[in-house]
Amino acid sequence: MAAYDADTLLHVAYLVAIVAEAMTAALAAGRRQMDWVGVCLLGCVTALGGGSVRDVLLDHHPLSWVANPHYLLITGGAALGTIAIARYMHHLRKLFLVLDAVGLVAFTVIGCNIALGLDLPFVVVIASGMITGCVGGVLRDMLCADVPLLFRAELYAMVSIFTGILYMVAQDLGLNHDLAVILALSCGLSLRLLAIHYGWSMPKFIYTRDIH
Amino acid sequence: MAAYDADTLLHVAYLVAIVAEAMTAALAAGRRQMDWVGVCLLGCVTALGGGSVRDVLLDHHPLSWVANPHYLLITGGAALGTIAIARYMHHLRKLFLVLDAVGLVAFTVIGCNIALGLDLPFVVVIASGMITGCVGGVLRDMLCADVPLLFRAELYAMVSIFTGILYMVAQDLGLNHDLAVILALSCGLSLRLLAIHYGWSMPKFIYTRDIH
Amino acid sequence: MAAYDADTLLHVAYLVAIVAEAMTAALAAGRRQMDWVGVCLLGCVTALGGGSVRDVLLDHHPLSWVANPHYLLITGGAALGTIAIARYMHHLRKLFLVLDAVGLVAFTVIGCNIALGLDLPFVVVIASGMITGCVGGVLRDMLCADVPLLFRAELYAMVSIFTGILYMVAQDLGLNHDLAVILALSCGLSLRLLAIHYGWSMPKFIYTRDIH
Repeated sequence: MAAYDADTLLHVAYLVAIVAEAMTAALAAGRRQMDWVGVCLLGCVTALGGGSVRDVLLDHHPLSWVANPHYLLITGGAALGTIAIARYMHHLRKLFLVLDAVGLVAFTVIGCNIALGLDLPFVVVIASGMITGCVGGVLRDMLCADVPLLFRAELYAMVSIFTGILYMVAQDLGLNHDLAVILALSCGLSLRLLAIHYGWSMPKFIYTRDIH
Repeated sequence: MAAYDADTLLHVAYLVAIVAEAMTAALAAGRRQMDWVGVCLLGCVTALGGGSVRDVLLDHHPLSWVANPHYLLITGGAALGTIAIARYMHHLRKLFLVLDAVGLVAFTVIGCNIALGLDLPFVVVIASGMITGCVGGVLRDMLCADVPLLFRAELYAMVSIFTGILYMVAQDLGLNHDLAVILALSCGLSLRLLAIHYGWSMPKFIYTRDIH
Repeated sequence: MAAYDADTLLHVAYLVAIVAEAMTAALAAGRRQMDWVGVCLLGCVTALGGGSVRDVLLDHHPLSWVANPHYLLITGGAALGTIAIARYMHHLRKLFLVLDAVGLVAFTVIGCNIALGLDLPFVVVIASGMITGCVGGVLRDMLCADVPLLFRAELYAMVSIFTGILYMVAQDLGLNHDLAVILALSCGLSLRLLAIHYGWSMPKFIYTRDIH
């Protein structure tokens, strides 16, 4: 019963997250003056790309959108719908930062679960969570010909690693699956929101000397 | 007999298309002043990349160039040969636009066929066709550090989606495989050429407000 | 005994190479002012990306870092450590050029071996070697939003192709596995170092006419 609750929570968070990711990707597409199809495709790639890369690397088939093609329709539709409501989106800026944070931690826990289901070792489980959480945004930035924000943003990848480690350690310490999910989601989300609010960031590595 | 004819047509269109894709990629490489090996590699990636990404995502192995390594030689050779005839290529501009359009629709139908052979659902079949038709050009643009033209060009991805849907609906309506192939190829090709001729394009989504 | 020696040599060269690749990637990250996590991730992707792409394309699972997760820790750690010693790195410029060349040829021979183990044809074996040797650097440059250096650098991909062909021909001519490995590594390494020293490069293809 409890397991049912945590998995439902995770699934709802997943659906909210792919919609939110598709919508923020649509805004990035709009800044690049992409056409409607480009908006749609960038939304799908951003929302579903992280999980797809993880599944390809771990040989975990079929991919989520192959097994559940309505994910393509949901994310493509969300991206298209964003065009209609774009003018109001800046009022929702804070909401989308929260939804994006929800996505990051939910994707991470889902990615860890996939790797756990394949009996992979600890480090790979953490990597699987981080790939799921972060690669969608990296693909978005690469398709926009930008240096990925991930490599420079406030604790983004760090929150994913932290969430994954907390989730694994909680289970190792004997917490049941449900509590571990809820603990990892809530602590990861809090860390991300605190990082945004206080502008926390990792130290940067600045190297100006050219190697040549 | 008739099936033999349509599949032969598709295979010939495929070979023409990978050569044409490799040659236009070679010109893109020349604009970036790449060396001969770079020209060769960019030609192979552009011509064979869409099918490779599709096969990796759908777990359809071996990839076409692994099973038929002469595809690598054909596309690499076509890219290299382009260096020799580059000075005459602008006279062939219109020919190459047509060959590129042939490639787009042929790749799309081939991609749909692969997904149909794996018993995948409708939306995934269309996505498989579009990935096969469009991703090679996206990889080319990413390797040239450009925002992919796909996201901004005249109906390019749209033609692929249209071709795929037409192909599927024609078969659902009871048309035999051959007629469906020929109908999809000819209508898709016509739409693409009309779009180029009249400069049709999807509406663009322009969003200037920065989210930060 | 002899086989043991050549394979050990190859494995040591591999470990040296992934550390060297991660460290040069870290410097590239520093030039982009990435944060510490970005440095770490770029190091892992650069060092392990070529082999991962090869394994995904050839359906060769599990990937090296999935089977040996300590490779993630070694490369991530090497990238992080580079931050501490970056100020001295320019004194080691020549050492790193040599280590990078060692990596190129060692990755190439390892990639050929993987494809040979899957009974793939000659052209695919050479391609597998080249993908293993070169794609890590391509991913690094794409993530830095640069046109990949590979497409423009001195004989880089060419050295990989040469090493692969030499390795295959030597075995076809009846040389035992060990001698073939050592011959390919030493000749490939020599060619690369000569190319760097004398500034040898492939002719460039320069195409200035715009196709539109």
